[in-house]
Parts: sequence; structure tokens; C-alpha cells
Amino acid sequence: MAGSPSRAAGRRLQLPLLCLFLQGATAVLFAVFVRYNHKTDAALWHRGNHSNADNEFYFRYPSFQDVHAMVFVGFGFLMVFLQRYGFSSVGFTFLLAAFALQWSTLVQGFLHSFHSGHIHVGVESMINADFCVGAVLISSGALLGKTGPAQLLLMALLEVVLFGINEFVLLHLLGVRVWGGMEWGVGGGQGQPLSQEHGGGGGVLPLHLTAPPQVRDAGGSMTIHTFGAYFGLVLSRVLYRPQLEKSKHRQGSVYHSDLFAMIGTIFLWIFWPSFNSALTALGTGQHQTALNTYYSLAASTLSTFALSALVGEDGRLDMVHIQNAALAGGVVVGTSSEMMLTPFGALAAGFLAGTVSTLGYKFFTPILESKFKVQDTSGVHNLHGMPGVLGALLGVLVAGLATHEAYGDGLERVFPLIAEGQRSATSQAMYQLFGLFVTLMFASVGGGLGGLLLKLPFLDSPLDSQCYEDQVHWQVPGEHEDEAQRPLRVEEADTQA
Amino acid sequence: MAGSPSRAAGRRLQLPLLCLFLQGATAVLFAVFVRYNHKTDAALWHRGNHSNADNEFYFRYPSFQDVHAMVFVGFGFLMVFLQRYGFSSVGFTFLLAAFALQWSTLVQGFLHSFHSGHIHVGVESMINADFCVGAVLISSGALLGKTGPAQLLLMALLEVVLFGINEFVLLHLLGVRVWGGMEWGVGGGQGQPLSQEHGGGGGVLPLHLTAPPQVRDAGGSMTIHTFGAYFGLVLSRVLYRPQLEKSKHRQGSVYHSDLFAMIGTIFLWIFWPSFNSALTALGTGQHQTALNTYYSLAASTLSTFALSALVGEDGRLDMVHIQNAALAGGVVVGTSSEMMLTPFGALAAGFLAGTVSTLGYKFFTPILESKFKVQDTSGVHNLHGMPGVLGALLGVLVAGLATHEAYGDGLERVFPLIAEGQRSATSQAMYQLFGLFVTLMFASVGGGLGGLLLKLPFLDSPLDSQCYEDQVHWQVPGEHEDEAQRPLRVEEADTQA
Amino acid sequence: MAGSPSRAAGRRLQLPLLCLFLQGATAVLFAVFVRYNHKTDAALWHRGNHSNADNEFYFRYPSFQDVHAMVFVGFGFLMVFLQRYGFSSVGFTFLLAAFALQWSTLVQGFLHSFHSGHIHVGVESMINADFCVGAVLISSGALLGKTGPAQLLLMALLEVVLFGINEFVLLHLLGVRVWGGMEWGVGGGQGQPLSQEHGGGGGVLPLHLTAPPQVRDAGGSMTIHTFGAYFGLVLSRVLYRPQLEKSKHRQGSVYHSDLFAMIGTIFLWIFWPSFNSALTALGTGQHQTALNTYYSLAASTLSTFALSALVGEDGRLDMVHIQNAALAGGVVVGTSSEMMLTPFGALAAGFLAGTVSTLGYKFFTPILESKFKVQDTSGVHNLHGMPGVLGALLGVLVAGLATHEAYGDGLERVFPLIAEGQRSATSQAMYQLFGLFVTLMFASVGGGLGGLLLKLPFLDSPLDSQCYEDQVHWQVPGEHEDEAQRPLRVEEADTQA
Repeated sequence: MAGSPSRAAGRRLQLPLLCLFLQGATAVLFAVFVRYNHKTDAALWHRGNHSNADNEFYFRYPSFQDVHAMVFVGFGFLMVFLQRYGFSSVGFTFLLAAFALQWSTLVQGFLHSFHSGHIHVGVESMINADFCVGAVLISSGALLGKTGPAQLLLMALLEVVLFGINEFVLLHLLGVRVWGGMEWGVGGGQGQPLSQEHGGGGGVLPLHLTAPPQVRDAGGSMTIHTFGAYFGLVLSRVLYRPQLEKSKHRQGSVYHSDLFAMIGTIFLWIFWPSFNSALTALGTGQHQTALNTYYSLAASTLSTFALSALVGEDGRLDMVHIQNAALAGGVVVGTSSEMMLTPFGALAAGFLAGTVSTLGYKFFTPILESKFKVQDTSGVHNLHGMPGVLGALLGVLVAGLATHEAYGDGLERVFPLIAEGQRSATSQAMYQLFGLFVTLMFASVGGGLGGLLLKLPFLDSPLDSQCYEDQVHWQVPGEHEDEAQRPLRVEEADTQA
Repeated sequence: MAGSPSRAAGRRLQLPLLCLFLQGATAVLFAVFVRYNHKTDAALWHRGNHSNADNEFYFRYPSFQDVHAMVFVGFGFLMVFLQRYGFSSVGFTFLLAAFALQWSTLVQGFLHSFHSGHIHVGVESMINADFCVGAVLISSGALLGKTGPAQLLLMALLEVVLFGINEFVLLHLLGVRVWGGMEWGVGGGQGQPLSQEHGGGGGVLPLHLTAPPQVRDAGGSMTIHTFGAYFGLVLSRVLYRPQLEKSKHRQGSVYHSDLFAMIGTIFLWIFWPSFNSALTALGTGQHQTALNTYYSLAASTLSTFALSALVGEDGRLDMVHIQNAALAGGVVVGTSSEMMLTPFGALAAGFLAGTVSTLGYKFFTPILESKFKVQDTSGVHNLHGMPGVLGALLGVLVAGLATHEAYGDGLERVFPLIAEGQRSATSQAMYQLFGLFVTLMFASVGGGLGGLLLKLPFLDSPLDSQCYEDQVHWQVPGEHEDEAQRPLRVEEADTQA
Repeated sequence: MAGSPSRAAGRRLQLPLLCLFLQGATAVLFAVFVRYNHKTDAALWHRGNHSNADNEFYFRYPSFQDVHAMVFVGFGFLMVFLQRYGFSSVGFTFLLAAFALQWSTLVQGFLHSFHSGHIHVGVESMINADFCVGAVLISSGALLGKTGPAQLLLMALLEVVLFGINEFVLLHLLGVRVWGGMEWGVGGGQGQPLSQEHGGGGGVLPLHLTAPPQVRDAGGSMTIHTFGAYFGLVLSRVLYRPQLEKSKHRQGSVYHSDLFAMIGTIFLWIFWPSFNSALTALGTGQHQTALNTYYSLAASTLSTFALSALVGEDGRLDMVHIQNAALAGGVVVGTSSEMMLTPFGALAAGFLAGTVSTLGYKFFTPILESKFKVQDTSGVHNLHGMPGVLGALLGVLVAGLATHEAYGDGLERVFPLIAEGQRSATSQAMYQLFGLFVTLMFASVGGGLGGLLLKLPFLDSPLDSQCYEDQVHWQVPGEHEDEAQRPLRVEEADTQA
């Protein structure tokens, strides 16, 4: 069918029809189910009892904006490193994120804040939605350049659901018993009993009680990074292209595309402390989480430079390592940064993550392709996969060391089940470990299903010779003012196949 | 006179002399009139009664910083899409904004916060000034590449005054009667009775009573977007260049200029929730406004991708649409996002705006030039004009549906005149509609006057063959390290004319 | 030794070994000394007495994030202007900052928040660390392109210590007597009695009393800009390269490198109000400081455009001026923006700074190189040196005018020694002036020592013909997709020497 007019016509319609359908369906579901929550709706916010200054907006929105910048600027530009795929990298990230944030508002809403027949939204649902988008974009990094936008939207449709279920299982179902007679809390997206926290601190009415989370993962080492990475890697395995070397000449960077990618890197790096702390407990919780992440990132940057020079040809640094592995410090403390990690612990974790990630780019990515047939375009296994698993294991370790002495009153917030004597620290550590296995299982099965979905034969997918190429999807201007549009045309290219 | 030495000398002096004069005059006016307000000046902030934590700074400054980033990063880089006009796009945006923010502090100060012979400034005057700068930059987008910096400064000199008067009329003069015996409030720039809001919430002394606004327009669908767009379009009409095709070869983008422009797009997109909510009521007001804008932008992104692919050659996406129309969701809820729009309403509005905007780029911009002789370089009619008018009409609709039940205590904040029984919802809707007409009138007459001003024969303006060209105004390096400066020189070029 | 295999092997190992050593040593010192402070550690934050909403995190973290963006995005990209040194500019800034923030946490901690055998960290130590990083990056701007990364790390190792000591002397030792029986405050990094401020405002337990600072310098005109600039300039003098013209062809910019640099400029510009106000007193202190900086920057932008066109060839603007001198308004109010500068004073100061800075680039930088043998790659003398000294002098002037009437209760916060009658305003002005001389002395002696350190013969340093060249340190892709790696290779080049 390749190269035929019908195929071109099909491609012409797949993306717009899918966009229109998904947006239409989402809007209908919003109309039926989504309502402002008590902190967003003036009629529900009883003015006499609350000060406007206590609205959760002021404690979460600055963090949200940083997370938002990471998702759209950070991920978007980080993927611009490919020489001829800049429009697609930043554009499809934009499209995918704009859809996935709506869809995850619905999915997470059904699972976490559905009561009286409605989903209730506010700043914490915005953060949770952006977190889920992060996982989807991580997965898309493994597929970068090898899938069309319609395929990516379908992937998001599936992945957001599985992300929500996995998170729900970790937060609420892993325990021996589910608390009876209690409603899920309004702000329980990441399992943070927000209302209670805030109620204790600022006078917000505790609207609903919240069951304590079974597994802690505030910054998503498991639920975001591990899940997103292995979902994408398994999916990439299913979509394995043995003939991909036809597009190898476009798989590298050029000088200015690497500089654009550094915009993404730096914005991810500077705002990661806000990412990990966005949904932790108010007060010392957010404060400590941000501080730990700041130290961890600094250490992963130094270990990345050290290792990149050590393993580089003639001792020269490799921009791919700096762009990616320097960020591993943020991933590796995703679970433990809200715990009593200590500043030293944060440095050590970051150092280890930067090392593992850099070595992964150098030595493991080639093996992943040659032996395991996983073509991981932007190296998500090195930046999110391994550091995510390490981060989950670090969470096991730190949770296992939790004591009343070290946490004081904070124990009630971070590990309520330990504080209330329902669990020992060792037992909590085992739950954390089990959470990692559950996540890996969901990610693998989900990625496999995703691969089957994306292989549906009628879906438009770039040819092996057309991967990493903007012109398949975009009207592309020349590189200089005196150039006409580039000679390669999609229709002609189709006939190569 | 073209090409003569005297012209070159004139050009040499126009910009610096105008900059020096404007800055000098502004400084003198600041010395005479501008003082810190009660929230900024320690001597006026009675320590015994106020907690530092209640200073309005903490509730508005994070929003201000986002707005500031939109103005300087967002607008600046969005306009870098032209292949040879990057220095001018980002540089003149910078210059224009730096002047206009000072000038609008004065103009808005005289109109809104002038008492006891002084203008009182603080974080809300910074936000209001940046909002006015937004309108000026929108207008400049229609003229991009066709005017010199001195012309743009003169445009700002006029436009800021008209912006201030239009806003003042909408907020205070449209009503049947002006409240007697009341002083305008300190923070009334956008008509938000800030002190009262805050007084109710946090203990700030209600320094001055504020008359309730006649028309609501928190995010400026009318006062910023509609006003800025039609002011610029009418001005562009007056400056119509029939010979502009002499510069057509420079009017497109190149690959990396489109990527730079995406930096602008993404920063505008992520911070737009802060823009619309920056001056809304504290607490639920800001919370709900940000949430509505977030949803609207997500939907406009999906409809933009859908429509761009639908109308694109071979179904391929057009970067111009993505860079611009995806932002229309922020414009279209500028008036209504502080109202009970509902999440579904936000999605529907954004979807419509993205659709109209994309279709505008494809079908209406060419007609605008050929039939209406309006050369709209960056398509402000599509991004700000039509979505701004749609946003005003949406405000009419949503205001007309306002009820005590839906808004609860919030009615007093959003529509105080309805809450106090002085107006029906239908009557408020009529005021909103009348506000749109007033804005269109001010913009059109103002744009016409601006055109006459900019046509003053002694003003330096690029030749028809020199539009969209940085070298007219800048010392430009080559594109590669082995290139000398580009061959085209302004002096030689002048002789073409 | 140039060109020999042993040299190449040495280079291969210097950077990684130094990174590993510095990170290892830092981690050990963290393990022994660094602990969470009372606002970060839940066990220390007595829940019953404090509201979470009063945690200092909420009053400082948004400012910190802006400062963080300035350091990593602003400085990083500002230095990308060199045509072939983009990877090094943004990469070494990243590396240097990631190390220096850890090291300055230790150094400043020992000097300012060391008690009971531990350094206590929290959001204010993050801000103080980033401030110190700013000084280090300013110094590195003078050396840009002429030093290897290992040299830069050694410079940071020395400079951070001297920065800390200089700041300590200014804040605490310049007075006639040191207050007996008082502990240094937890948050006293910039000499702000944070706990007291906050204690007065929001209910935080005043954990430790703080000695009032002897010299005020909230935004670091002296401690950051003057110190960083003259440290770097003296260091550059010691490293003077008479044969640098061998690399002159790479010292300029290309079109897109100038656009990348403007990303740095704009992010520095928009967030500078947060920089100067990050550590000022809560409430009106932060509010007023941000407002003053905003006005000063606007004025310096106009004077920069005016002067750049006045002195430019054919009246054309020079991108170097816009990228740098427009920022001088932030530097010049670094000391005085927390004082009663008045909005007019801010405009006047900014105007002057932009003028001096632009003229410096045009006329003084060439003299600096030819007469004083200081090769100042990115012109830090114009952006940080002269405006920093001007800012210190402005601080002398404004401090000398301090009265109870003008400051009201604010006098106690800004000039506690005047408020308590221990000093006259004139006397405070003399202390401020003395602070400038002390800073210049520390910077000069430190820069000299730094130069001797960096000249150690075994340290890897680029050849005169290899300055401003990424390939010395990085694996560099081509500029276009059809290019192989650039022909120049480091090994070959070495043999030129």
C-alpha cells in the first residue's frame, strides 16, 4: 500500500480525526463528570471559616508551574537533539502532553477523587495530570523518530489508564486491609492526605478523610520513571525495526540541535526539586524534599562529567551524557527525597545515579539494541529506567530505617502506618519493594499491549528509511534563507519501500 | 532623500535621541509623582497590625514573574520565526517592553491609583504595566519587520495612553452612575478591589474603598487582546506597502528560526494560567481562573493540530499554526476564566478558538492582505483578534448566566453589582457586550491615529526592499564561522530605492 | 610536552579525577557536618507551635527558583555567544555551578550557620550557595575560552572560600565591637536576621538571635558582582596570553549563537528582581527590593539601546551591548534596592549603569587588553565590575541619607544599628564604603592567587591556537546533517605548538 494515493489520503486523515475524536470524547466526559473542588469553587469555599491566604493554591501552584515548565520546555527541547526531527520532537511532545493531561485528569479522577458522582479538580489534580504526562513522555522518548503522531496518541490513551491503575494499586491496594467506611480524599492523587496536612497547618476544612498510602513514591521513581521507561522499552521491543540502519544517518545530532537540547536539560535540572516536592506534605515535607533533590542533582552532574570524560574518546566529553545522565540525580531520589535521606545520602545517591546512567549510555545502549532488540532512541533506559529502579530500591532502604526518633512528628506524615503502629519499618520496606515489582509488571504487560496496538496495520507509521525525519509529518523550510524546501519529499520516499 | 548621507545621519540619531528623551521624561515624571504604596513602603505598613506573611507580594509576585516571562521570553522569541529578523524581533520586543512598562506605570497610575498627588506602586502595578506591554507587543506583531525601532517607540507612546483610557472606561465609566464619595482603590488596575479581597482574607488594612468594576475582563480578552490586535491591524492598514513583495523572500522562516520561535510559544503556553489569574480575586478566584485556562489551552492545542493537518498540503502540519493557534485557548478565556465557566466550558472554548485561529491563518490572512490591504506579519488577527472577540462574547454569555446559586459568596467578588442587587445578570451581559464595542472603537481610532503618526515623513522606516532584515538596524555576524559579514549593506541597498 | 601522547593521557585523566576527588571530599564533609535546619526537619519543627503555612520555604523558595534559573539558564546561555564554544559555555557553567553550590554550602555553613558542631541547611542556604555560584560564574566569564574545566574547578575551590570570608568580614567583622554572648543566626547567610523578621511576622520560633550586619549588600553589588568581576579580571591578567590572536577568528559570534545568548540575557533580566530580593526582609523588604530592581533594569535597557546606536557604526546596534549592558541595571541596585532608593532613584541608577556599561564595551575593553593586558572574554568588567562598584557607591549614598522618617519601622530591618542609635547614617555610609575597599582587596589578592594556582604547569590548558574551541574538550558533531565531524582534531592541533 506504500506510496499509493490511498495511503497518503489515509495519513492525511488519521491524525486530525483522532485528535477530533479524542478531544470530543474527553469534552463529553468532562461535561458529565468534572467539577471544581472545594478549594476552587467559591460557592463551596465557606468564606467565613477560611482565609483566602490558606487556599492550597498558594502552596502548590508555584510547584505546579515548575512541573509544567519541565513537561513542556524540558521534555520538549531535550528531545530536539536529533538533527532533522526538531519540529516533531517539540511538536509531538506538545500534542501528546495536551491530550494526556486531559485524559489523566479523568482517569486519575475516577480512581482518586470520585465521589457523589463527580470528579473534583483543583491544583493537585493539575500536578497529578502533569506527572502522568511525564510518564507518557518518557515512554515516547524510547520511540522517538519511529512512530507517527496518531500512534503516539493511541499509546497515551492506553498508558494513562495503566499508569492510573498502577498508582492506585501501589497507594491503596497493597495493604492487608482497606480501611472501611472512609472516602478517598479530594487531594489524594499521589496519596498525600493533603486536606489533613493542610488542616493541621492552615485551617482548611478537612473535607474528606483519606486512607494512608500503602507505598510512598512522592516524586515517582517507581510510578513515573520506572513505569514510563519500561513501558516504552517493551513497546519499542515489540516495534523492533531490523532495517533501521536505513535512517542511521539522521540519528545523530548537529551542533545547534545539541544546544537546543541543552535548553531542555537545564530546565529539567533546575526545576526537579519542585517536581519531587510538588505533592509532598506541606511545610517541612516540601522543604526537605526540595533540598534533597537539589543536592542529588549537583552530585549526579559531577559524576556524569567525570565518567563521560573517563570513557570518552581522547578523554573528551560527550554531549549526550551531559544532556541526560546529569539529570539522573533527580530520578534516583524520587521515592526517598521526602524521607530522612540526609544531605549526604542525597549526594551519594546522585553520584551513583550519574555514574550508572553515563555508563549505561556508553556500554549498555548498544547491547540493548544488538542483543535485546530494543531501539531506545533517547536512552530512557539510562536516564529513567535504571535510575528509577535504583530510586525505588533506595526507597526500600530508607523506609526500612525509619524510626520515631529520626522523623519526630514527621513520621505521621511520611509513614502514617508506621506511626500508628500498624506496620514496622521493615514491613514498610517490603511493601515498597513489592511496589517496584508491581510497577515493573504493569509497565511490561502494558508496553506489550501498547506494542500490539501500535502495530495495527492501518496505522500510519514512518518507513524504515524515513525515521527521524520531520518532513514526513511537517512542512519544513530550508536551513538557509536561499534554500528552497528540502528535496526529499514524502511521496517519492514512499516509493522506495 | 533615500540613500543620501543626511538620511543615514538622521537614522543614526533618531533612535538614541528618542530613547534618551523618553527615558529622561519618564524619570522626571517618576520623580514628581511615583511613590511606594502601603504594601511596599515599610514606613506605611503598620507593623503592629500586619503580618509580613500577609503582604500582597506573596500572593501576586509568583504570578507576576510568570507574566514577565511571557512578555519578554514568550513574545520576544515567538517573533523570531523570521529567517533574518531574529535580532530585531527579540531586541525590539525588549526595548519596546522596557519603555512601555515605565510609561504605562505612569498612565495607569494617573487613572487608577492617583491620590494625594501621587501614584502609588507595588506588585499589582507591575502586573498591570506588563499587561499593557502585552497589548503593545501584540500590535507590534502586525507590523513586524516593516517599522523601525523609533517608530515602534512612538506607537507605544500613543498606544499605552489609549490602552489606559479604554480600560478606565470599561472598568469605571460604563455604569449609569459613578459612586460618589469614594476614592479609587490602590490596587484597582484591573478593577480588582484588591484591598477588600485581601482584607477579608488576610488582615491587610483596607486602605481605600474601590468602586466595583462595570465590566469584567481579568485576563484581557477585550482590553489586551482585542485592543492590541485591532490597534495593530488598523495601523498596519494605514502603513500598507504595495511593493512589499520586494522583501517576500525574507518573509518565511528557516529551520532553526522556527525552533527558536517554539521557545516563545511554549513559554507563553505554560504560563498563560498565571496571566489570566494574576489579578483575579485571591483564593478561589485565582485557583479557578488558572484551572480554566489550563484546560482551555489543552483543547486549543488538539484542535490546532487537527485543523493544521486537515488543511495542510499532503496532511502535513504547518509550524506557523502550532506556534500560534495553539495559544488561542489562553486568549479566548481571558474574560470568562474567572467566572463559572466550568471545566467543560473551558475545553469547548479552547477547542473553538484553536479551530478558528488555524483556519484564520490558512484562509483569512491571505484575504486580509489582498482584499483589506492589511499586512499582518505574525498573524495577530488569528491569534489575538478573532479569539479576543470570541472571548469577549463568551464573557457576555457566561456573565448572562450568573446566579447566586452557582457563585455563592464568589458572586460578590466577580460581579459585585449583581450580588448587591444593582444589576441583573442580563444587564451585566449587556455591559460586557458594550465593553467590546467600546474597545473596538478605541482600538480602531487609535490604530488610525497611530498610523498617521508613524507616517510622519522624517521618521526612519525600512525601504520596501529592506523589510524583515536585521542588517538595517544591527551589526550582523555571518551564519558560519568562516563567513565574513553578509554582503548586503544598508547604504548600498538605500540606493535601490 | 605539547602534542605528546603523555599530555593527551594527562588531559584524559585530570578532569575526571578532579571531579571524583572533589565530589568525594564534599560528600564526606557533608556526612560529618551538614544537617537539616529547624525549618526543614520535621522532628525539629515543633508542630504544635508552628503552622506549616509559616514555613520559610513558602516565602523564599519561589525566589530561589528564579535565582536558580538565572544561574543555570541565564549565565549558561549568555556565554554561548561564541561561535564554536557553545558546548563548553553551557556545559562548564553547569559543571562549575554544580560543584560550587556544594562547596559554598560547606564554606558559608562553617562561617554563618555552624553551631553544636553542625552546619544547618535549608532554603536560605540554597539561595546563599547559588549567590556564591554567581560570583564564580562571573569570574569564569573573564576567562571564557582560555581555560580548561579542571582549571575552572580549581578556581572555584579557591574563590568560594574567599567569597565566604569576604562576605563574613563585611557582615560581621567591620564593626567596632562584635556583640558578645550571641550566636550567629541560622539564616544569616546574607546577614538577614531571618528568624526575627519572620518571627515578628508569622509566628516562627526565633531559633537563634543574630548579630546585626555591619554592611548591607542584599543583592551583592559588592560581594557578588564586584568581587566576582575583579577576581576574574586579575586572574585573567595573570594568565595573559600574548599570542591569543591565533584564536581571534573564533572569538566572535555567529547569527544563531547570538540568539542563544539572548535566551541567557532575557532570563537574567526577568528574574533579577527575585535575585536582589531573595534574601531581603520578608514583607515590604522583598516587595520594595523587587520593585526597585524592575525599574532599574527597564532604564538600563533604554540607555543601552540609546548608547549602542550612538556609538555604533552607521548608527547600528551591537548585539554584545544588548546582551550585556541592558543587565547592568540589576547589578547597580544590588546594594541599594532594599533601601529607600525611590522609584526615581532606581530609574536614574539603571540609566547610568546601562550608559557606563555600553561605553565600557565600546571604548574600555580594547584598552583593558592593549594597555592592562587583561583579556576579558565576555566583558565582565563592563557588566559586573564597573556597575558593581557604582552600585556599592550608590549604597554609600543611600545609606548616608537614611532617616527614621523615611524608613519608619523599616529602619530596624535595613539598618538595625542606626535604628538602635549605635551608628549615625553617615557612619553607616563610611562602613559601606570601607566594605567596597575590603571587597576589592579580597578580589584582587584572590585573583592573583588564583592565577598562580591555574598556572601550575601540569594543569591542562588550551593552546593559544586552540582557545574558544569546543573540540578541545568535547566530541563535536558537524553543523549540518551531511557533514562529518569537523576536520580540526585536537591531536593534530597540538602539534602546531
